[in-house]
Amino acid sequence: MTHPVPESADLLGAVAYGELAAFTRLAADADRAPDLAGRTELATLAAVEMDHFRRVRDHLAGRGVDVGVAMAPFVAPLDAFHHAVAPRDWPEALVVAHLGRGLADDLQSEILAWIEGVDDEVAALVRDVLADAGHGAFVEREVRAACADVRVRDRLALAARRLLGEALAGAAAVLDEHPKMAVIVVGPEGGGRAAMFKRMKSRHGKRMSALGL
Amino acid sequence: MTHPVPESADLLGAVAYGELAAFTRLAADADRAPDLAGRTELATLAAVEMDHFRRVRDHLAGRGVDVGVAMAPFVAPLDAFHHAVAPRDWPEALVVAHLGRGLADDLQSEILAWIEGVDDEVAALVRDVLADAGHGAFVEREVRAACADVRVRDRLALAARRLLGEALAGAAAVLDEHPKMAVIVVGPEGGGRAAMFKRMKSRHGKRMSALGL
Repeated sequence: MTHPVPESADLLGAVAYGELAAFTRLAADADRAPDLAGRTELATLAAVEMDHFRRVRDHLAGRGVDVGVAMAPFVAPLDAFHHAVAPRDWPEALVVAHLGRGLADDLQSEILAWIEGVDDEVAALVRDVLADAGHGAFVEREVRAACADVRVRDRLALAARRLLGEALAGAAAVLDEHPKMAVIVVGPEGGGRAAMFKRMKSRHGKRMSALGL
Repeated sequence: MTHPVPESADLLGAVAYGELAAFTRLAADADRAPDLAGRTELATLAAVEMDHFRRVRDHLAGRGVDVGVAMAPFVAPLDAFHHAVAPRDWPEALVVAHLGRGLADDLQSEILAWIEGVDDEVAALVRDVLADAGHGAFVEREVRAACADVRVRDRLALAARRLLGEALAGAAAVLDEHPKMAVIVVGPEGGGRAAMFKRMKSRHGKRMSALGL
């Protein structure tokens, strides 16, 4: 693979729309926060998504690719994913925000592991975007407090498992429809997919435990 | 005035909530955009507000002031302002976003002119936040296109004038309720207020003209 630009543009289009869709979700959740601290926290996380988005957009523009064109194929599947996991209240919003970010980071780490050496510029960009995801203390504190009620905890654990299921189903659907991108993410034989999903399940489970779920 | 910290904390609380409220408005408008380009544009503007917010929050934290406490007195008046000028459709959303940002910049410039030399650190922060507001080309293009229909143009011009009226009324109410802050913004005698409002009106009119309104 000596010309990875078209495939990585596809990939970065998916990453860019992932950021934009996450912004939309987080901003809507911020607007429904029970207090100013929660609103500020989710608005800040939403803004971080757009910081990442801008870097991906500028990178694509530098290669003559319009981010809107690159994102277009991923609007429907990512919107369907967000619709399926739409939180019903504030604690669910925090769980979806935190664990959804974790799953997105996992996916990007998997992409990074494969892309390293194939396209150094894209690898550097993905690493850079991954690096400053830093958040979680606020969400962990709030979710742990909500889990004091065992019925709330059970409901949040269900939401967290649904999130994983929808994320893996969504990722599989996108990879099926974009074979060139699938080659980048899971290798030429596609054999890496099961192993990748297993790693994501394991990391998701650890993040659930950290939240007390 | 040898200890400007309490007054400038008040002032920065107003600036911080102004940024957060603008974020909420722009993010909601982004979600109602007619296409991916418009959605991306307003989401990016929303994120810029939160970048500014974070700088103000960090500055206040460095002085031992919690941003939530500093913002609290300004939540009700700024929410009332945003409610009064809530856009009814996409072209109005663009007009309110663009001209509202312009009015906020004007206010901050006025503050800057007064604070210079009184509190260099706050002056530097305000100047820094003002510097990267850069946007407008997208909005100008879209609004000019919408103005091809003269009825739409008349309606947008009305919305723009309402925005100015609400902004000046809101600013006057806030200054009345916060005399210490008023001293910073319009001088110890309050005599600068009429002149300041006149300058803001004039600049707003120029921005309306630039939009074709």
